[in-house]
Amino acid sequence: MAFRQKHLLGIEPLHPDEITAVLDVAERYVDLNRQSEKHADALRGLTQINMFFENSTRTQSSFELAGKRLGADVMNMSMQASSIKKGETLIDTALTLNAMHPDLLVVRHPHSGAVDLLSQKVNCAVLNAGDGKHEHPTQALLDALTIRRAKGRLHRLNIAICGDVTHSRVARSNLILLGKMENRVRLVGPPTLVPQQFREFGCEIYDDMAEGLKDVDVVMMLRLQKERMDGGFIPSEREYFYRYGLDAEKLAHAKPDAIVMHPGPMNRGVEIDGTIADDINRSVIQEQVEMGVAVRMAAMDLLARNLRASREADKGVMV
Amino acid sequence: MAFRQKHLLGIEPLHPDEITAVLDVAERYVDLNRQSEKHADALRGLTQINMFFENSTRTQSSFELAGKRLGADVMNMSMQASSIKKGETLIDTALTLNAMHPDLLVVRHPHSGAVDLLSQKVNCAVLNAGDGKHEHPTQALLDALTIRRAKGRLHRLNIAICGDVTHSRVARSNLILLGKMENRVRLVGPPTLVPQQFREFGCEIYDDMAEGLKDVDVVMMLRLQKERMDGGFIPSEREYFYRYGLDAEKLAHAKPDAIVMHPGPMNRGVEIDGTIADDINRSVIQEQVEMGVAVRMAAMDLLARNLRASREADKGVMV
Amino acid sequence: MAFRQKHLLGIEPLHPDEITAVLDVAERYVDLNRQSEKHADALRGLTQINMFFENSTRTQSSFELAGKRLGADVMNMSMQASSIKKGETLIDTALTLNAMHPDLLVVRHPHSGAVDLLSQKVNCAVLNAGDGKHEHPTQALLDALTIRRAKGRLHRLNIAICGDVTHSRVARSNLILLGKMENRVRLVGPPTLVPQQFREFGCEIYDDMAEGLKDVDVVMMLRLQKERMDGGFIPSEREYFYRYGLDAEKLAHAKPDAIVMHPGPMNRGVEIDGTIADDINRSVIQEQVEMGVAVRMAAMDLLARNLRASREADKGVMV
Repeated sequence: MAFRQKHLLGIEPLHPDEITAVLDVAERYVDLNRQSEKHADALRGLTQINMFFENSTRTQSSFELAGKRLGADVMNMSMQASSIKKGETLIDTALTLNAMHPDLLVVRHPHSGAVDLLSQKVNCAVLNAGDGKHEHPTQALLDALTIRRAKGRLHRLNIAICGDVTHSRVARSNLILLGKMENRVRLVGPPTLVPQQFREFGCEIYDDMAEGLKDVDVVMMLRLQKERMDGGFIPSEREYFYRYGLDAEKLAHAKPDAIVMHPGPMNRGVEIDGTIADDINRSVIQEQVEMGVAVRMAAMDLLARNLRASREADKGVMV
Repeated sequence: MAFRQKHLLGIEPLHPDEITAVLDVAERYVDLNRQSEKHADALRGLTQINMFFENSTRTQSSFELAGKRLGADVMNMSMQASSIKKGETLIDTALTLNAMHPDLLVVRHPHSGAVDLLSQKVNCAVLNAGDGKHEHPTQALLDALTIRRAKGRLHRLNIAICGDVTHSRVARSNLILLGKMENRVRLVGPPTLVPQQFREFGCEIYDDMAEGLKDVDVVMMLRLQKERMDGGFIPSEREYFYRYGLDAEKLAHAKPDAIVMHPGPMNRGVEIDGTIADDINRSVIQEQVEMGVAVRMAAMDLLARNLRASREADKGVMV
Repeated sequence: MAFRQKHLLGIEPLHPDEITAVLDVAERYVDLNRQSEKHADALRGLTQINMFFENSTRTQSSFELAGKRLGADVMNMSMQASSIKKGETLIDTALTLNAMHPDLLVVRHPHSGAVDLLSQKVNCAVLNAGDGKHEHPTQALLDALTIRRAKGRLHRLNIAICGDVTHSRVARSNLILLGKMENRVRLVGPPTLVPQQFREFGCEIYDDMAEGLKDVDVVMMLRLQKERMDGGFIPSEREYFYRYGLDAEKLAHAKPDAIVMHPGPMNRGVEIDGTIADDINRSVIQEQVEMGVAVRMAAMDLLARNLRASREADKGVMV
C-alpha cells in the first residue's frame, strides 16, 4: 500500500504518493457520507481518543463524527480545564492514556512539537489536529481534496495563500503539501504578517492583492488570528479589509474560474466579504468542511490498517 | 402515514392526527425502555447532533439517550462557550454543521425563532429543543403522553397551567397542544406572570388558585424562572408559595383524582410543596421524565422515516 | 456465582470471594484490551450514565472506555456546572435520572455517603467512583489486581501505604481490601496526615519512612492532596519530599523486589521521585491504569448480570 506512516504528525514526512492515497480513500468516504446510512466498519472495536489542549469545536467535531461513522469507540477529553502546562506532565498524561490502550489518538496542542513528542511515548497511531504554529495536516489534506475535486487536478496550479500567514499552521501545512504536488504558491499579505523566511518553501511573496491574485486558480484566505497577536502590529479591521480583505474587485484579478477557500471560522467583513463567501459559483468553503470529515475518515482508516499490520507482524516475531 | 412533518419546530404546525401518531409510536418506546436490552435500529447509521446554545442537562440527556438507544451516532456540541451571538454567525454555524451531513439536528437557542431560521439552511430534520419564549414541542408531547396514560384520554379534560406563564415556552406549547386536542385550559397565576394576550388561545385566566384549580383533572405547575425576570416584578419566594405554591390545601379544590405535573427542575417550597411532588398517588413528575425519552425517540424515528422517504423520492426524480 | 452485590458502593460490604471474582473476570478483560479489536457484548443494549459531581478526567475516562468496550450506551453528565449542592436536590436528580431507565450509574460525589444515599432511590446498579473521604472501591480493586499480577498472590504480603492518609478514600478502601485478604498493612507518614483511629483496621503506624518501608513487598504512595487541606498543617513540598517522598534511598529499605504504586496523578518531586516513578523494574504505575479499565469492565459486567437476573426473578414472581 502507498501509505506507510505510523502517525500523521504533519505533511512534511509524507511522500506525494501517500498524499494521493489519502485523497483516493477519502473520495469513497465522501460518497458514504452522502448516504442516509453512513456507516462503515473500518475502525470497529478500536478506541479513538480526542485530546484537545486547545478548544476547537469544528475540528474536534469533524474527528468525532469521522470516528463514530467508522465504528470506533470515541472518547473526547477536554484538557484545557486540567492544569497541564509543563512538558513533564504532558508525558505523564500520554503514558496514562497509553495504558488505557487507545488505537488512535487525535491531539491538538498549543505548542509546536508537542504532538510529535507525545507520539514517541505511546503505542498507538497519533494524529496531529494542530500543534502551535507548526502543522495542521488534516486541514491541508482536506484543502487538497477540495482543490482536486474543483479543478480536476492537484498539480501545476497557481495558488495564492492570503492574509495572516505568520500565525497560521494551516498556511504552513498547505505550503508544504502544495509544493510537494508541484504547484506554484504565492503568499499575499502585509509584510508584518508574511514572514520572509517562507521563501525557503519556494514561494513568491506579495504585499499587494491585485498583483498577488493575478491569474491564480485558487484563492485561499486565512483567518486573521488577533488572539495570537501578542504586542506588535495589530491592524484595524477596516484598514485590513480595505487592503487585504477579499472582495469582488480584488477577486477579479484571479482567473475567471478561480475558487475561493477559507478554513473557517470566518471573520466576515475582515478578511473576506460575506457576498464572496456565500457565492456558490466561487466559494467552496462549505465543501471544505464536508471534505474534512471524509479526509479524517481516510487518514484514520489508513493508520488503523498500518497499526493492525504492525501488530500482526510483532506477533509473528514473537512466535 | 399520519406524521408528515420535515421538522419538529413547534406544536403550532402539527395536525391533531400527527400528535396522536407521535404518542402512539412513543408508547412502543416506553415498553422498550423498560426492558434490560433497550435498543432498536430506527436511527442506525444516522448522525444526530445536539446543539445547545443554552445549558440544559435534563433535556440534552433525554435526547442523547433517545438517539443512542435507537442506534444513531450522537454528537453533543456545547455552544455556550463558543462566541455565537450574532444571527449572521448562527447561519455560518448551521452551514458548517450541514456540510458534515447530519440527519437529525436537535437545537436549543435563547432566541425565539432561531431554530426555525436555522432549519431553513440545512438539509436534515431539525428538532426544536426550546427556543426563547416560543416553543418547546417535545415537552408538550411528553406532557400529553403522560396525561393520556394517566387519564385514559387526551380530550375534554380540564387542565390548569399554573405559575410563571410569561417566561414559559413550556406553557405556550402545552396551551397550543391541549387546545388542538379539545381540552379546556385555564391559566392560573399573578397577573404580572400571566399575560392577558394568552386569551387568544381560548383559555380562561385566574389569579386565585382556589378558583383556578376548581374541579380540574390536571394541575400543571411551572418553574418560577427568576433567571429570566429582568427588572419588573420579582416575587419573594415565601409570598409566592403562600399564594401560588401548590400544597395539599390548594390541590383539594381540584378533582379527587387530579394529577400533578411539573416540567422540572423543581423549586421545592416555591412553586410546589415537596410532599405533593413526592406523593405517588397524585404526582406524575417522574413519569413525565420517562415519557420524555420515549417521545423523543418517537419524534426522531418519525422524522427519520420522512427524511429517508424524501431522499428516496429525490433520487427517483434524478433518475 | 460468587459475586452477589446489587451495587458496588465500597469494599466494606464485599466478601473475599467476591473480590476474587471481580479480579478473575478482570483478568479476561486485560487480555481483551490488549487486542486490536477490543469489543465484547456484556453490556449491549444497556445504558450507563456517568455522573461526576467532582471533576476527574482519569477515573471518568476509565469508566467511559470500560462501558463503551462492553457495548453499553454511555452518557457523561458533568454535574459541577449544575448547582447541585443540597442533599434534597441530589435526590431529585437521582429520581430524574432513574426515570430515564439507566442500568448502570457511576457516581463521584464530594460528600461521604452521598452515593449510598443515591443508590437507595434508584432501580439500577450504582458504582461508587469516589465519595468524599469514604471509599473508592474500583481504585482498591485495580490496585489489588496489580499486586496479584506482580506478586503472584494477594495475601500474606507486607504493604506500606505512605503519605496523606487523612484525605484519602483510596487509602481507606485499600486498607479494608488488603485486610480482608489477610495482608499486613502499615501506614507511614507524618502524624498530622495519618490519623490514629486507623489502628482500628489492624494496621501499624509509622512516621519514619526507613522503619515503615523495612522489608515490605509493596510501597503504595498517595497523592499529597493540598486542595483538601483546610487550615491546619500544610507541609512545604521540599520538606515533605525530604522526609516522606519516595526516593532510591528510602526504597532501599523495602524488599529488593518490592513494587512501587501510585494512584495518580503524581506530584513528581513531592511524594515521589520521578526516577523511581519511571523505573520499569520497580514502578507498576502505568499497569495500575491499565488494570483500572479491566477492573471497571469486570465490575460492570458482574453487576449487570445480577441486575438482569433480579429482573428476570421479578418477572417470574409477577407471572
